[in-house]
Amino acid sequence: MSKLNLITLLLIFFISIKGYSQNRTEINIPDIPGYITLKCDFHMHTVFSDGDVWPTVRVQEAWLEGLDAISITEHIEYLPHSQDIDADHNRSYEIAKPLADQLGIILIQGAEITRNMPPGHLNAIFIKNANLLEREDWWEACVEAKEQGAFVFWNHPGWKAQQPDTTLWWKEHTRLFNAGIMQGIEVYNESEFYPEALKWAKEKKLTVIANSDVHGPSNMAFSAEKKRPFTLVFVTEKTTEGVKQAMLDKRTLAYFEDKLAGDRAFLTPIFLNSLDIADKPVELKNHEVKRVRVTNESDLTYKLKKRQPSIGFKCPEELIIEAHKTILIELEGISKEIANAGVLKMYYEVENLMTLDGEALPVILEIANK
Amino acid sequence: MSKLNLITLLLIFFISIKGYSQNRTEINIPDIPGYITLKCDFHMHTVFSDGDVWPTVRVQEAWLEGLDAISITEHIEYLPHSQDIDADHNRSYEIAKPLADQLGIILIQGAEITRNMPPGHLNAIFIKNANLLEREDWWEACVEAKEQGAFVFWNHPGWKAQQPDTTLWWKEHTRLFNAGIMQGIEVYNESEFYPEALKWAKEKKLTVIANSDVHGPSNMAFSAEKKRPFTLVFVTEKTTEGVKQAMLDKRTLAYFEDKLAGDRAFLTPIFLNSLDIADKPVELKNHEVKRVRVTNESDLTYKLKKRQPSIGFKCPEELIIEAHKTILIELEGISKEIANAGVLKMYYEVENLMTLDGEALPVILEIANK
Amino acid sequence: MSKLNLITLLLIFFISIKGYSQNRTEINIPDIPGYITLKCDFHMHTVFSDGDVWPTVRVQEAWLEGLDAISITEHIEYLPHSQDIDADHNRSYEIAKPLADQLGIILIQGAEITRNMPPGHLNAIFIKNANLLEREDWWEACVEAKEQGAFVFWNHPGWKAQQPDTTLWWKEHTRLFNAGIMQGIEVYNESEFYPEALKWAKEKKLTVIANSDVHGPSNMAFSAEKKRPFTLVFVTEKTTEGVKQAMLDKRTLAYFEDKLAGDRAFLTPIFLNSLDIADKPVELKNHEVKRVRVTNESDLTYKLKKRQPSIGFKCPEELIIEAHKTILIELEGISKEIANAGVLKMYYEVENLMTLDGEALPVILEIANK
Amino acid sequence: MSKLNLITLLLIFFISIKGYSQNRTEINIPDIPGYITLKCDFHMHTVFSDGDVWPTVRVQEAWLEGLDAISITEHIEYLPHSQDIDADHNRSYEIAKPLADQLGIILIQGAEITRNMPPGHLNAIFIKNANLLEREDWWEACVEAKEQGAFVFWNHPGWKAQQPDTTLWWKEHTRLFNAGIMQGIEVYNESEFYPEALKWAKEKKLTVIANSDVHGPSNMAFSAEKKRPFTLVFVTEKTTEGVKQAMLDKRTLAYFEDKLAGDRAFLTPIFLNSLDIADKPVELKNHEVKRVRVTNESDLTYKLKKRQPSIGFKCPEELIIEAHKTILIELEGISKEIANAGVLKMYYEVENLMTLDGEALPVILEIANK
Repeated sequence: MSKLNLITLLLIFFISIKGYSQNRTEINIPDIPGYITLKCDFHMHTVFSDGDVWPTVRVQEAWLEGLDAISITEHIEYLPHSQDIDADHNRSYEIAKPLADQLGIILIQGAEITRNMPPGHLNAIFIKNANLLEREDWWEACVEAKEQGAFVFWNHPGWKAQQPDTTLWWKEHTRLFNAGIMQGIEVYNESEFYPEALKWAKEKKLTVIANSDVHGPSNMAFSAEKKRPFTLVFVTEKTTEGVKQAMLDKRTLAYFEDKLAGDRAFLTPIFLNSLDIADKPVELKNHEVKRVRVTNESDLTYKLKKRQPSIGFKCPEELIIEAHKTILIELEGISKEIANAGVLKMYYEVENLMTLDGEALPVILEIANK
Repeated sequence: MSKLNLITLLLIFFISIKGYSQNRTEINIPDIPGYITLKCDFHMHTVFSDGDVWPTVRVQEAWLEGLDAISITEHIEYLPHSQDIDADHNRSYEIAKPLADQLGIILIQGAEITRNMPPGHLNAIFIKNANLLEREDWWEACVEAKEQGAFVFWNHPGWKAQQPDTTLWWKEHTRLFNAGIMQGIEVYNESEFYPEALKWAKEKKLTVIANSDVHGPSNMAFSAEKKRPFTLVFVTEKTTEGVKQAMLDKRTLAYFEDKLAGDRAFLTPIFLNSLDIADKPVELKNHEVKRVRVTNESDLTYKLKKRQPSIGFKCPEELIIEAHKTILIELEGISKEIANAGVLKMYYEVENLMTLDGEALPVILEIANK
Repeated sequence: MSKLNLITLLLIFFISIKGYSQNRTEINIPDIPGYITLKCDFHMHTVFSDGDVWPTVRVQEAWLEGLDAISITEHIEYLPHSQDIDADHNRSYEIAKPLADQLGIILIQGAEITRNMPPGHLNAIFIKNANLLEREDWWEACVEAKEQGAFVFWNHPGWKAQQPDTTLWWKEHTRLFNAGIMQGIEVYNESEFYPEALKWAKEKKLTVIANSDVHGPSNMAFSAEKKRPFTLVFVTEKTTEGVKQAMLDKRTLAYFEDKLAGDRAFLTPIFLNSLDIADKPVELKNHEVKRVRVTNESDLTYKLKKRQPSIGFKCPEELIIEAHKTILIELEGISKEIANAGVLKMYYEVENLMTLDGEALPVILEIANK
Repeated sequence: MSKLNLITLLLIFFISIKGYSQNRTEINIPDIPGYITLKCDFHMHTVFSDGDVWPTVRVQEAWLEGLDAISITEHIEYLPHSQDIDADHNRSYEIAKPLADQLGIILIQGAEITRNMPPGHLNAIFIKNANLLEREDWWEACVEAKEQGAFVFWNHPGWKAQQPDTTLWWKEHTRLFNAGIMQGIEVYNESEFYPEALKWAKEKKLTVIANSDVHGPSNMAFSAEKKRPFTLVFVTEKTTEGVKQAMLDKRTLAYFEDKLAGDRAFLTPIFLNSLDIADKPVELKNHEVKRVRVTNESDLTYKLKKRQPSIGFKCPEELIIEAHKTILIELEGISKEIANAGVLKMYYEVENLMTLDGEALPVILEIANK
């Protein structure tokens, strides 16, 4: 049908590349000393397994929503569209890759090993050939992933469909962990938080991860009210290899529901680098009130609660520093000695920054006094 | 691979039907005397031609966005995903139909006959078998559609890719029109308005249509700032047959960019039925000011401009009656006789209601005076 | 200075009445059988006591925000602007009244008797002369209010500034109550809920009230995230007298934080009248799934939780029916007898409708089956 | 009444300073080489003339809305609240000043000389004593302002109430201008743009100014849809004196309706400093397509239109760089020589940056190529 082919060619010429000509909304979360902060989502599907969108849509969404790196992780064992779609397990990666390169999105090849519990669902990312993961035996699939150099993590460990009553760590997970195969864990998936996973991440030194596991269009699943979860990855270079090394080194935080969860070593600099604190000395004296201007330059709203009193002065019990807003913190001198203090220290905890212990991050705000 | 099949079954059981459990936002545009007002989109694509979503997504979007009827209109001649997708031209309809039935969305079988200009692209909707439209000769495809009982309309007649300099009506369109095949025309497609199409609709009595022609997720293409266009169809019954009869009878209006365009016979009752005007007589007298409460119960914001002065009283030069808001219109008596007037008439035109002449709709607001 | 006066006159002529020419946003909460539902705020201040706006602003805000009745309740005993403002206690009412009449806002004359605890702050509304409430003795002020026909209620009974540790009912309140003076109580003020007040309202049959107590511009104090609280008043006529009779008869509900609190006799019809439930019989049979369309036509989002299983069929554990949205409720037949049931009953409680016991309102959703 | 005084004292203690504990939204418009960019509004009213709010509200609004400097400019000759408010013309400044100091808002003393046309209304800012401006003769009032060191500008020169048919420059304005009294002009007031004023600003070297002239609460007059206008002032120090010197030196731009208007010398650096352009050389070659990442870090959305073709490569006809978004600009090599170009130049004009000629600002985007 040569005529139809001709029509096709004409059409291709005129199809404008609408998706990615649109403006991208950056996610404003600061870099930290020594590392670039990348926003990543390592779990999502397309029509090539049980998702509802073409693979390029995942790249367009990543661009529009400010993500830096994604992995499309089709189910190996669950292909409900196979009646209509005839392709191997590498196909969605191949289709998405050229657009990812154009847009500067890091596309990491991945797949989801999809089994009953135990061991449940496992994502293998940084793989080379997803087809080789199709095995009768789940252990063989995991070993194959490992041999391809994969980073493997446990998906939605507390998913009610597989762990209806309690969230258990099975002996199969110990086996995977001891073999150095399973190195990370989703502490958050789509709209569910798993406190047990955070505990295991601490105990066993697993990389903490939060993913969307999105199946339909991301705008249908997420919104301004229900934000898409993602993983902050702290890299030394913005490349696939840089992301992989960071995952191996556990340089991550999980973002979900306006919270960050993970190691204090990353929470603290994220918090401090988000703030611009006026550096002019306040020169607080006894019986005086002074105000310190603090601007939150990040997209995160920080909710602070006082942990303990400051020495020689009073400061507010609570502070809400909304994203991209400025507050004035009122300080009141209550001792004569305060006039001689070089630095004023305020002791807060940040309620929406969660350590591996599941607790609010303690922080010290330091203000130059003279 | 019986084990994989078992896994599949377990999974199917647990996949929750997320898409349509979400809340639907109704489009508030009133019914008019004698007819139910349906909101319809007759032009969209999925992965089964050059779109980016699975067919069920189109039904979910229709549900969420308040549409009543849609037609998925895959290109017959342009199948860029054919390397991966192996299906006939009826397949996307078959996949989408069960969900449409569950959600009460009227799904109309359709297809897009996709040719160079002339005649360009034509949608055939209410067809029975899209496969039979695959013909070398476009005329034969159109005749086949007609024989299946299709309603055929011309898509994006002023599309720059096909009519770069001027928007022409070709002899091929006359042929289609004279044969009773082409009965409607898109006056708006995606983000383009075609004034010539509106003119032809008037001259040749074509049904006016506005469609999204959406390819990606609708939330990626449209937003609160750039609203999805659709066609209002005035039916006597909310069924596929009801929609078809209305299309044949030209009972439609095109909605786009907060405007409605089409026949005054439908614009006027839509406008009047959108308003709730306080019915208490105002008892306006000379030298007095009275206020009339008007509530706009529709999703459309109406922008009114005075056409001519009222007799015996003054009223505002302009009125903006925002969607779902209430205004007070101030009237000032300027003649002694006004106290005896039974009804006060105000002469406006509605700038965002466009007649087939492309002009603002003239309206008369009537207020009981005593 | 006659020239200046002339200028003044010219200016008055040209000052356009901007405030109330703006569109009003109605609050969509339905009427209930036998009563019209008014939205009222009985506690607010202007520059004539310790507020920050001119009295007409309170009327403009009421108009714009969809309120039907307000009372400006200046402090009798606290006049921090008295150095600059020289006026008696009736003045803010006098200034606001003409605009209220033009806009159809019911303006109720009121004042706040402002004392240390006990008895704390008391609003007297429906008074005739606020000047007579200026007394050394608070009891005399209250008796005077009563003699003027006032409805008196206790403001912010749990205000930390006056009841720092516990929220107590003092003997002074018993005295006021026994004398028939204090007939209502704020269960919510500005951003604080007082559970004790709700309990007292039940025990002592006090009218439940929620007010904004707004001092600055209402848009500065309240927003889409922190909604202005108000009182629903169920009247037989939309007049000052109608509001007063309803207050005396305890026909009110308190609105705050997307919740309603008060007597079940009013909560239940508000809930049921908010919903439009498809009335076509569902004809549910054993092993079948049917869907029932429910549209929430109100501004309130209802959050429902199942109280007990339905007989013969299953329905969702939770339902969130967002404001102005439509949901489909899925029903699954699980008994043969269900095919013969005339009505299907679902037993939920509405988590954001709070009875006088402080508990979620139990409701029964009834669906015609055949 | 000692008891009332006691109550008063107790109350004062408990009144929390709500207004300015709220978060401030910064206006993100960059500094330019040599200057700090301040956002200023030099025209507003309070209850001390014909406004509707207490003077402190103007300071709170400035804080919340991201302004750096304001002037409250009460009418000298128009005092509609004088029946209730007994104060001299300096009073609103005195009341607002302490809060301005606490919040770091520069409060400039001002007044509005309010006369029939000619000369209409004139704002005198940086005055010392507003009472001395109360004169029968407008010329004397202006001379007094000048002697106090005021900067005087013409308010809303095209206000329909005073210039109903044409916007004229009267001989009185020539007199004020020649005497060095009138040095600036509002090119925008509240919601009106005056093209004639922009022309005069160019011809006569007047300082361009845009002001809100707000009378009610600013949130009632302005919104996300109708943004508050303000003046950008480019200062060497963030003080009252710094602002004054900048006004005298005409270092200003008018902001209104998402536009900036004024001298190209300020428009150009504002535009360029708003953008973060990826600095990695693109290495564009013939027949290749490369993409350049551009992030707009300002609150202004820039709309660019191509002025002339680039040499050796193609770039888009139009660019919309939304506030706080990132775009990729596609470049296509169309000559062999392009591979040797060190810098790629693109010639656009920015449609929402308006020069003193009333035309779109021409800009050159330069991209490193190798």
